[in-house]
Amino acid sequence: MASIGVESIGSECSAKELYYLLTRLRQLGIQSIFGVPGDYNLRLLDFVTPSGLHWVGTCNELNAAYAADGYARINGLSALITTFGVGELSAINGIAGAYAEKAAVIHIVGTPARALQDSRSLMHHTFADGEYRRFGKMAEHVTVTQTNLVDERTVPEQVDWALKQAVLHSRPVYIEVPDDMVNVLVSAERLGSELEVPGSLEVDEKEDALLKQVQERIYQAQQPLILVDGECRPLGILSQVDELVKKTGWPTWTTVFGKSLVNEELPNVYGHYSGPLASEEWKTYFETADLIINLGPHYSDTNTQGFATIPRESVSISFLPDRILVGKDTFRELPRSFLPRLLQSLDGSRIAGVTGPPKLSHTDLATLNLDGPITQKTFYDFVNPLFRPEDLILTETGTASHGGREFQLPRDTRLFGAVTWLSIGYMLPATLGAAIAKRELKKDDNARAILFIGDGSLQMSVQEISTIISEKLNVILFIINNAGYTIERAIHGRKQAYNDIAAWRHDHALGFFGADKSQLGNNFSARTYQELQTVLSDERIQFGTGLRVIEVFMDREDVTGLLANLINSQIAKEQKQ
Amino acid sequence: MASIGVESIGSECSAKELYYLLTRLRQLGIQSIFGVPGDYNLRLLDFVTPSGLHWVGTCNELNAAYAADGYARINGLSALITTFGVGELSAINGIAGAYAEKAAVIHIVGTPARALQDSRSLMHHTFADGEYRRFGKMAEHVTVTQTNLVDERTVPEQVDWALKQAVLHSRPVYIEVPDDMVNVLVSAERLGSELEVPGSLEVDEKEDALLKQVQERIYQAQQPLILVDGECRPLGILSQVDELVKKTGWPTWTTVFGKSLVNEELPNVYGHYSGPLASEEWKTYFETADLIINLGPHYSDTNTQGFATIPRESVSISFLPDRILVGKDTFRELPRSFLPRLLQSLDGSRIAGVTGPPKLSHTDLATLNLDGPITQKTFYDFVNPLFRPEDLILTETGTASHGGREFQLPRDTRLFGAVTWLSIGYMLPATLGAAIAKRELKKDDNARAILFIGDGSLQMSVQEISTIISEKLNVILFIINNAGYTIERAIHGRKQAYNDIAAWRHDHALGFFGADKSQLGNNFSARTYQELQTVLSDERIQFGTGLRVIEVFMDREDVTGLLANLINSQIAKEQKQ
Repeated sequence: MASIGVESIGSECSAKELYYLLTRLRQLGIQSIFGVPGDYNLRLLDFVTPSGLHWVGTCNELNAAYAADGYARINGLSALITTFGVGELSAINGIAGAYAEKAAVIHIVGTPARALQDSRSLMHHTFADGEYRRFGKMAEHVTVTQTNLVDERTVPEQVDWALKQAVLHSRPVYIEVPDDMVNVLVSAERLGSELEVPGSLEVDEKEDALLKQVQERIYQAQQPLILVDGECRPLGILSQVDELVKKTGWPTWTTVFGKSLVNEELPNVYGHYSGPLASEEWKTYFETADLIINLGPHYSDTNTQGFATIPRESVSISFLPDRILVGKDTFRELPRSFLPRLLQSLDGSRIAGVTGPPKLSHTDLATLNLDGPITQKTFYDFVNPLFRPEDLILTETGTASHGGREFQLPRDTRLFGAVTWLSIGYMLPATLGAAIAKRELKKDDNARAILFIGDGSLQMSVQEISTIISEKLNVILFIINNAGYTIERAIHGRKQAYNDIAAWRHDHALGFFGADKSQLGNNFSARTYQELQTVLSDERIQFGTGLRVIEVFMDREDVTGLLANLINSQIAKEQKQ
Repeated sequence: MASIGVESIGSECSAKELYYLLTRLRQLGIQSIFGVPGDYNLRLLDFVTPSGLHWVGTCNELNAAYAADGYARINGLSALITTFGVGELSAINGIAGAYAEKAAVIHIVGTPARALQDSRSLMHHTFADGEYRRFGKMAEHVTVTQTNLVDERTVPEQVDWALKQAVLHSRPVYIEVPDDMVNVLVSAERLGSELEVPGSLEVDEKEDALLKQVQERIYQAQQPLILVDGECRPLGILSQVDELVKKTGWPTWTTVFGKSLVNEELPNVYGHYSGPLASEEWKTYFETADLIINLGPHYSDTNTQGFATIPRESVSISFLPDRILVGKDTFRELPRSFLPRLLQSLDGSRIAGVTGPPKLSHTDLATLNLDGPITQKTFYDFVNPLFRPEDLILTETGTASHGGREFQLPRDTRLFGAVTWLSIGYMLPATLGAAIAKRELKKDDNARAILFIGDGSLQMSVQEISTIISEKLNVILFIINNAGYTIERAIHGRKQAYNDIAAWRHDHALGFFGADKSQLGNNFSARTYQELQTVLSDERIQFGTGLRVIEVFMDREDVTGLLANLINSQIAKEQKQ
C-alpha cells in the first residue's frame, strides 16, 4: 500500500498520523495488535498490516483487552484498537485490570470524524444527545493519560507523551483517533530517533549515603530474607532480583504476584509465602527476620493473604516504583541505577551465609491411590512434572490460582495468578495474548502455554478458544469441572443455586470453535489419577502442538488452604443453626 | 428463610435493606433478576429467591446487562446485579446501551463492606489505592441517578427516588449496596403503599388552547401521515398510538426504532419508512405531506437513514417525552393526559379520509428459483410466513437488522432492531431477557422468540445460548453465516482480513452448550431456498419447543439497500484506482 509510510513534502518529512503512531509502537517492540473492527476504526485498521504489525481480531472487545494485558505482561507493552462507545466500553473492565496490576496497554479508539463531533451530530454509538466527551471522561478513571489526536500540529508530541506515560507507569493510556485524522499528514521528524523515556537524574550525595546505609544493613543481617513481589515486573528489575538472590544466597520467597519472577530452581528460593497457611518454621523465620529485602511490593488483601504477609516496617528495605523505604524513612528521586550500583558494590565476603527453614514438602505421589478421584490437594503436584523451562503457566482466579501457588516452577517459566483485580474470564484471553508475545519474543513456534481454569470462569470468555485455534498457538487447556463457581461457594452460599452454572459438554469445544480435522482428537478427560496419568503421558500432550483440552472432574466443594477454612466455617455455622 | 421479610420491632415496622429494595422491584412488576455472583454480592443474592424473584445467572456481566435491557423493553423495568469493579465495569457497555435507547435497568452493585471502604482498605477488585468512588463516577455518565445505600435512615427514600427516576426517564439507574448493609434493618413503612411516579399537574388553560390548536390542524389536513418512532415505548403511549392510527385511518409509517410498535395488520399501516430507499410514491407523499403526527421521535443517524426521514418542522406535531412541538412552538409541562384527551375529543367526521400511496410490493415467491442460493434480497420475505401473532422477533445489528425492517409483522409481535447504540453482541442476550419477560407477562410457556443474527455478532456473546437452553425458552435462532462482519465490509474494507472471522461449526452449538439429548436434533441448515423451505416446514420449527438453530449460508458480500450503495461505491472506487 503505497499510501503508508513516510513521505517527503518539499524539504519536510511527514507521515500519515496513524503511521506515526503505529511506527512508534513498533519501535517500542510491539509486533501484534489486538481488537475488533467497528465502523469508526475501519480506516485506522487499514494501516495495521501495512505497518508490519500482526492483527489479532478477537471475538469481542473485553477479550481483546484481556489479551492485550496478557501480551503486555510478557512483552512490556501492548496495543488494543476498539471503536467509539460500544467497543471501548466493552473493553473498559480489561483496561481497569491492566491499571490495577500494571500492564502497559495502549488503548487506541477510533472515533467519529471531527466534523461530526464539532457539529454535535446525533451519530450512532452515542446517546444521540450531541455529547462526545463522556467516554473519554470514563477512561480518566482507568488510564494514566488520555489524549485526543485532533490537531496535526501536536500529534507527534501527543503520541510520544502518551506512550512515555504508559512505559513509565506500566499502565494503560487512552488515545482517541477521529476517523478523518488517520490519513492526515504530521511531521515525521521525531520518528528518526527512538522514544526515550526519561530517567531520574543522578543525585550522588543522597544516593551514596543511602547506598552505604543499605550495605551496612545487609552486612549486619543474621536472619535475612528476600521477598519478591509482582511489581518487580513493571519496575523492570527482574535481572537485578536474580542477581541479588544469587549473590546473597538468602532464603527467598515470593507473593502470589511475584510467583515465577525469580528462578525457583535456585536452592535458596522457597516459592510462595502463604502467611497464615505456611509451615510453623517458615512463619517463625519470616516473623523474626532481622532484614527483609522487599522487592516491588503490592499490598492488596488477596496478594498478602489478608495483609498477613506484609513485612514489618522496622526490618524492611522496600523497593517501590517511585521510592525506596528503609524502615520508617522514605527516599525519593533516586535514579534507576541505584539497585544495580548496590549489587555491584556489595562485598560478598561480608554477607552472612544463612540456613533457612526446611523447604515445602510436596505430596508423595508414589503412595497415591491412583484409582481415587482427582482432588485439589494433590492435582497440582501431580501435573507439575508436565512443566518445562520457558513454559507460560496461567492459573485463573478460583481454585486454579490457589492451587497454582504451590507449583515448583522450572527456570524461565512465567506464571499468571489471581492478584488484585481478579476478573474471572481474564485468563483465557490473557493466555492468547501472552502466548503470542512469547512466540514473538522467542521467535519460536514451539513456545507453549498451559492454562488452568474453572468451568465457571471459562464460560465468561470461552469464545477466545477460537482465536487460540486460529492463531495456531500451542496451548494445553485444563478445564477444572467442578460444576460451578467453587471459589464463591467457599466464600458464601456453598449450596446456593446462584453459584451453579449450566453444564457444558467441553468435549465439543474443539469442534464448535473450528479446529480442523487433525486437531479434533485433542480432547481428553480424567476423573481419577490413573486416567490423568494416561492423559499426561499421551504424546499429543507431551510433544503435540495446537490446542489440547483436558477436562478434569473434581468435587463441587473441593477446596484447599484459605478456601477450605472459609467453607469449613460455613459448615460450622450451618451445624449451629 | 425466616430472616427475610418484614419484621416488627416494638411498634415499628422494619425490613432488611435488601428486602426493601427487592420488594419495591416486585411491586413494580419485576419477576426475574439477571446477573453474575461475585464475592461482594453473595449475601445480597441470598435475598433474591426468598423474595419471590427468579434468578437468571448469565455467563458474564455484559450479557446480563444486555439481557436486562431486553427484559426492560418488554416488561418496562428490569434489574441486574453485579459485583464491585470487575462486574459492574464488564456490564457498563450494556448499561450505556440501555441509556441510549431508553430501557429502565436497575443496576444493583454489591460493594465492599462500609468499614473496608471507610478505612480505604486495599481490597481486591480495586486498584489497591484506597479509592472507592471511581466506578460510581463512571456510572454517572450512563445512568440517570446513582445512590449508595450506606445509611439505614435514608435507604427507603434513596431506593424510592432511584426507582422513580428509572421509571420516569425509562433509563438505567445505579444503586450501590455495601456487603454489610444487606441485613441492616430499615423502616418498612413506605412498603405499605406502592411507589407512585409523580405526574405533571393539570394546566387547564394552556392545555385547552393547545388541544384546540392541534384539533384544528388535524381537521384541516388533506395529506397527513402518522410517523411512529421508538420513544413511544418509553413514553408509554402505545395504546394511544393504536387508537390514533385506527381513528384517523391515515397512512402510518414507522422508523426502525418504531417498527412493531403499531399493528402492521391495519390497512393504513405501511411499515418502515426508509427515506432515500423508499418508493417514489412514498417519498412524494412524505415530502409533500401537510401534517405529520410525529410520535416519540428519536433522531440518530441510523434511525433516520442519515437524518433523511426527520419530518419537516413546519408540518409536524411531535410528541416527545417532556414536550410537544407544534411547528416551531414548544409546549412543556403538559400532563400525560394530553394525548388521551386529544383522542377523546376528536370528531371523526371532521377528519379527512385519505388515500395513501401504494403499499410496498414484496418478492413474488412463486417465481423464485428454489435451487438458487439464499440471498439477503429475498430471505426476509421468504421466512416472513413463519411469524405468528405475539412472537418476539429480534434482528441483530448487521444485515439482519437491515433485512428485518421490511418484515410484514402480525399483530402483537414485537421487533428489536438496530437503532442507535448498535453494540453487536447485544441481540442474543437481549433475546434471553425479552423472552423471559414475555413468558412471564403472558403467563404462557409457549411464548416464542425468533432471532436473526450474523455469524460475527454471534461470536461476541455466544455463551448465552447456554442460558437460553437452561431457561427452557422457545427460541428459533437463525445464524446468517456470511463469513465475517459483512456490514463492516459494506462500510469499508470489503476484502480486508480484519473483517474476517474464524469459521465455527454452528451445528455443534447445541451439543457444546449442554442441550439434552431430546434437543440435540434441533439443528438445521440451508444453502438454497429449497433447503430453507424444507427446514421451515419441519414440525420442530413450526410447533417445536426449546432452542432450534437454523444456519443459513449467504455470500460474504451480499447486502441490500443502503449497505448495497456503500459496497458499490467501494467497488467503483477500486475500479478507478
